[in-house]
Formats: sequence, C-alpha cells, structure tokens
Amino acid sequence: MENVTFPKGFQARGLSCGIKKNGKPDLGILISEPPAQVFSAFTQNAVKAAPVLYDRKVASEGGKVSHVLVNSGNANACTGSRGYDDVLAEVALVRQLGAPKGEVMVSSTGVIGEYLPMEKLKAGIARLFDAGSGAGESYAPFIHAIMTTDTFEKKAQRTLVLDGKEVRLGGVAKGAGMIRPNMATMLAYLTTDLGLDADYAGAFLGSVEKSFNSISVDGDMSTNDTALLLANGASGVRYTALSQPAREAFDEGLRGLMEELAKLIIRDGEGATKLVTIETLGARTVEDAKAVCRAIANSPLVKTAFFGGDANWGRVLAAAGYSGAELVPEKTSLEFCGVKVLEKGGRADYSEDVVAEKMKAKDVSVKVDLGLGKESWTYWTCDLSYDYVKINAAYRT
Amino acid sequence: MENVTFPKGFQARGLSCGIKKNGKPDLGILISEPPAQVFSAFTQNAVKAAPVLYDRKVASEGGKVSHVLVNSGNANACTGSRGYDDVLAEVALVRQLGAPKGEVMVSSTGVIGEYLPMEKLKAGIARLFDAGSGAGESYAPFIHAIMTTDTFEKKAQRTLVLDGKEVRLGGVAKGAGMIRPNMATMLAYLTTDLGLDADYAGAFLGSVEKSFNSISVDGDMSTNDTALLLANGASGVRYTALSQPAREAFDEGLRGLMEELAKLIIRDGEGATKLVTIETLGARTVEDAKAVCRAIANSPLVKTAFFGGDANWGRVLAAAGYSGAELVPEKTSLEFCGVKVLEKGGRADYSEDVVAEKMKAKDVSVKVDLGLGKESWTYWTCDLSYDYVKINAAYRT
Repeated sequence: MENVTFPKGFQARGLSCGIKKNGKPDLGILISEPPAQVFSAFTQNAVKAAPVLYDRKVASEGGKVSHVLVNSGNANACTGSRGYDDVLAEVALVRQLGAPKGEVMVSSTGVIGEYLPMEKLKAGIARLFDAGSGAGESYAPFIHAIMTTDTFEKKAQRTLVLDGKEVRLGGVAKGAGMIRPNMATMLAYLTTDLGLDADYAGAFLGSVEKSFNSISVDGDMSTNDTALLLANGASGVRYTALSQPAREAFDEGLRGLMEELAKLIIRDGEGATKLVTIETLGARTVEDAKAVCRAIANSPLVKTAFFGGDANWGRVLAAAGYSGAELVPEKTSLEFCGVKVLEKGGRADYSEDVVAEKMKAKDVSVKVDLGLGKESWTYWTCDLSYDYVKINAAYRT
Repeated sequence: MENVTFPKGFQARGLSCGIKKNGKPDLGILISEPPAQVFSAFTQNAVKAAPVLYDRKVASEGGKVSHVLVNSGNANACTGSRGYDDVLAEVALVRQLGAPKGEVMVSSTGVIGEYLPMEKLKAGIARLFDAGSGAGESYAPFIHAIMTTDTFEKKAQRTLVLDGKEVRLGGVAKGAGMIRPNMATMLAYLTTDLGLDADYAGAFLGSVEKSFNSISVDGDMSTNDTALLLANGASGVRYTALSQPAREAFDEGLRGLMEELAKLIIRDGEGATKLVTIETLGARTVEDAKAVCRAIANSPLVKTAFFGGDANWGRVLAAAGYSGAELVPEKTSLEFCGVKVLEKGGRADYSEDVVAEKMKAKDVSVKVDLGLGKESWTYWTCDLSYDYVKINAAYRT
C-alpha cells in the first residue's frame, strides 16, 4: 500500500481500456471505505471540462465521496452537453457496478475537443470492478492510469503521530507534461485517514494556494485542473479532537506533502532542466509578494536565462517591476543561489564566476527583497529549454 | 531624406562612439527646427531607466523639444542617482554644443546595471555636432544608432494630402531584439511637419495603445520602452485648422504608420518565423477584447503551436478562458487563417489538412468571436521557436 492507498480505508487501481493508442493504462479508480469528506480545488479557467463541472456540483452539495474515476488520454473538454451526458453515464455505471456508499467524482485529462470513446470506457469500468469478461483481472497502479506525458511517477506519503496516535497521508499527481493536443493539466489526489469536517475547506485551499497554485511551467491554465483531498476518518482520529499543536502538525504535514508533489510536477515540466525556487520577501502585501513571484516565474526571458545558467538580475528585476506589485528600485535587493547581486537597487559587490558556478546546479533559486514590508511568498518554476519548444511545437497528429 | 527626416524641418544622424564593442553605430541625434510639440509614451514598468525618468519630467513640463539624443549598447537602467546625473551631463553637453532652441530628450537601450561610459559618450556628442577632432565628420544613419540585435531596419514614412495641403509623417523603431543582458526594449521616434497642440496627447496615446501596446514578443516589458512623436509644424499646416475628414485622415495615417512599425518589430522578434494577427470580436468590453488578445499572444503553448504550424484551438480557447475576460464556451467561435474551427463552443466541420496548409504561411491569424457584445481588438505576436531559446539562454559574457 503506497501513496493514495497508504492511509487506511483506501483502495485504488488502474488498467488500459484503449483510450491511449499506445496501450498504456488510461483508466483508474480510487475508492474510500468509509466514504470520505472531500475537499476540492478546480481550474479557474472560464472554459471548464465536463468532469470539472460535474465534480464542482458534487462538491457543492456536500455529500461524502466513495469513488473517484479518472481517465487519461481524453480530457472531455469543449465537448458541450454531450460531454456532460458522458460523465453522467460514467457515474451511473460506477453506481451500478461499484455500489458506492457515497458520491462518485470523475476526472479526465488528455486531448481536448474530442468525445470520450464511451464503449471503451464502459468496458473498462466494468473491468475495474472485475465484472468484465475475464476473472482475476490484473490491475495496473492507479498512478499509471492518470499519467500522460509525465516521465516519472509523482507520489508521496507520510505518517504523522498526532497526540500519540498514528495518522497517514498519501498523494499522487500528474502534470505538467502535456498530451497532444493538450494542456498542462494538473491532477492531484490526496488521501488521509484522519477525520476532517467540511469546515477544513479553508485550510485545504490555503495549502493548495501555497503548493499547486504556486508552481508554473508556462503560465498556461488548463480546462481540467483538479486537486482533491479525501479524508475518511479510518484512523479513528478526528481533527476536531486534536490538540492545537497536533492540528498544526497535520496542517503542516498536508501542506508539505502537497509542496512535495507540486515540486515533482515542476521537475517533470516539459523540457525542464532546473527547479527554480522564487522567494519574495519584504512585500507590503501577500498579494504583492505573489504577484512578483508569478511575474518572475512566467517570464520567458527569466526562464531562458536560467536555462543558460545566467544570473540575469536585470530580467528578474524588470519582471518584478511589471508585476503590478508596489516596488521601489532603490529599496529592492536580489540574490541568486544565496549570492547577493543587487543591494537596494545598486549592483552588489559579487563575483560573476562564483554565481555562474552556482547557477549550474539542478536546483537554483532567486530571492527578491522588496524592502517595503513583512509579507513573503514562495513559488517554483522550471527553466525554458529547447525541448519545451520541441515538445510543444509538434503536430497533434 | 527618409523616415524621421522625411517630414520638413527634421535632421538626424548617428555615429559610433565606442559603447558597442563591435564598432557599430551607437549614438544618434534627432533635431527639429523649429522645436516640436512632443507626445510621449513610456514604459509602465515600476523599474524605469534614468533617461525615462528624465524624459517624463521634460514631457510633463510641456516645453517644446528640439533635440533627442539616443544611445544603444547601454540602457542606463538600475544605475540610481549616478545614472540620472549622467543624463543631466549629456543634456548639458547637448545644450552647450547644439545650442538647442527647445528642450533636450534622451533615450538609452542596451545592457542594464552598468554605468554609461561618459568619456566615450561626451566625445561622441561632440562629434555629433562636428565639434570633435576631425572636420568633415561622415555620419551614419540615425536608425543604425538605435539598433541593438535588430536584424533589419524598422522604418516607415508617408505623405498625406489634407485639405489639399501636403503633410508628411516618418518614423523609426527598434526592438524587440535584445542585447545581452537585455530587455525587449522598444524605442520609436515619430515625426511630422503638421502642427499639433498639446491636447492631441489623448489621440496619440490611443494610437500607441492600438500599435506599440498591441504587440508582444514574450510579454516582458522593458525598463526603457519609449515612443515619442515630434510635431514641428514646418509644413505650415495646423491640425486645428483642418476639416474633420482631414483630421481623421491624419489620425488614421499616424495610427497606420505606428502599426506598420509595430508589425516590423514583431517580424524581427527574436527567433520569430511567423507574424500572428490575433483578432477578438464580440466582446462585452474593449478591455475584455484586449485581455483575450493578450492572453493568447503571451501563451507559450499557443506560440509554440504556431511555430509548429498547428491550428491548436484547444490552447487558444484555454488562453482566452484564463484571460479574465467574460467568456461563455457555448458562445465562443474560433477561426484559424479564415477557417472556422470552433462554432459556438463545438468543433466546426473543417478539414485539418486545409488548415494545416494555411498555417504554413509566414503570416497567420486567429480570430476569436466571444459572441457576447460588440467590442473588438487586434493584437500582433510572433511564434516561439528554438532560436528564441537559443538567443536568450546565451551567457551575458
């Protein structure tokens, strides 16, 4: 039992139902017994895929969730009412075959603008419940079923001891590899056997903001992005019964798990050769700190400079300057990989050779101190390489 | 007499004063006699180069301008009070040697974070006024003095006949080629011998918005961006004395000239292989139409798809979806190169082969109809190629 099934009361499996032409796993299911309180974050894109529209409705109704069905290879996005009807048909089949005690959620990732191959999907769902032709189905890991162009598995798990009791956390994610033709869809499924009430939603969204919403490969936002946390209480421990320090330990454990997965996504960013940590300090507001991080993370000029191993502080400063955040050049300081290169708007006394050497590392960092206030934010991105262009310029065919 | 000196009463010249290591022209001057009413637009970046700070002050004081000094090879940005003092020293020397009848403005483009080599500059300014060592100085074109990594000259001119009288317009621009290390600095100098009053500023800014502010190579914004229009009235014709149709003809002529220069900048975008025209129609507000254009123009996923000649409507729709503009997928239609691919949110009946063939052209287009209102906007961008990465990943050294 690992990642999503590491906490008690979770099962998961995958298989290939033929959506992907290469025969790799493309359909999976995550099951919680007992049904779990669900916490969700979806794409903010005005163009939302059918499963996102459906899941938002389920989430808003507040029922507990027992099954999450995920397919890769087809995003069921820009498919209109037929796409939504297909989701309803998937859910109906899961209800019929899986006899869920809670609600069913659905995610899709892959090609957009094409209808789901429902016959293949239906046969696949039947096999997921071992109701297909052959007995003794041999399943693939759930994590494989959600992958598209990901080059490695993104998974994490941890055990927390809270007020002396063991609680487990697990998670998997996919992205921002893209399938042709394609989005940087991010899917993340987190599980815990701690019991959480619906009012934990604010804390969950806060951790999403500090992890999955604080990463960027290319600044594009998909129609299908989804992060779900299922908390089924199977450990017998409830959050509300914990001491304040234990609650904080859980909050931090969950946030840390999500950060771990978010960074794995960036490490596997298309064409990425470096993980770049961007830290903004001294901002007047948190929103300003985020805006500076985002502008730097999404600047193609900054990202190509990182690819070239160039501590190009002019590009970083310019990106901070157009971020919309309050910024006074004479108060702004910059560090690359721990070396101060700009001190209150003026070039610091540093060795280009020393910085250039540090910039050759796989993990590099840039720190911006706005010198205006006490707020800060951290963001992760990757560099922009030849391979990014190569991967994304390819024909869909 | 061509481009900026095509209208009456303008002189311009350039030379190499040694800022650029390759010996190419790096200093130029544009002179208006009589002094001209000046209209200006500067970078919105919070980090503004010293000459921009100085020029903004001159512009706000409303005096007429007779000299514009421009250097390339060094942006005089992030240089603090010493950088500003250097601008004052340049202006003082132009005043001393050029005996200007109006104000002096200054622009710089090139490396940021380094001080101007003032000895070289001062000697260069002296030579610009033929006060240097040798008599009979042989000057280079002004347009060459403002170029950095531009691979061709960006210039335009036109003659308008307004109420039967001849009026001339001219202009040059540089960018978005970048010098190492570097910004996508855009400089544009426009001249006319029509007489314009200060209250033409709104119309000028409107035309800037529709031209230089409606182009994007990579979405980055420089510390030095500057567009100036000098109107010296040397034609003897005044805007205020023109008929309404003649005024409109001038407005349109100026806007058209600026659009022509703006498109040349995009054609010379780093690594650009295609000019992409993005048109958004049917928006509820102009701001929405612009936001959709901008999101599409700045999406690396869209830009790499154009490089690959791929009519990837999913990426375009997704970018429109996260632009912040009001958008209803079921009302949105899309065309690539005149072929409708998405009709009110659903895939249109079209041939991939036909579109793929059209996408091979140097000039391609995408049209988004939001189907919600009557507002529209047009934007120009280029594709994102291997060469963009190559040019920008290079070390500064």
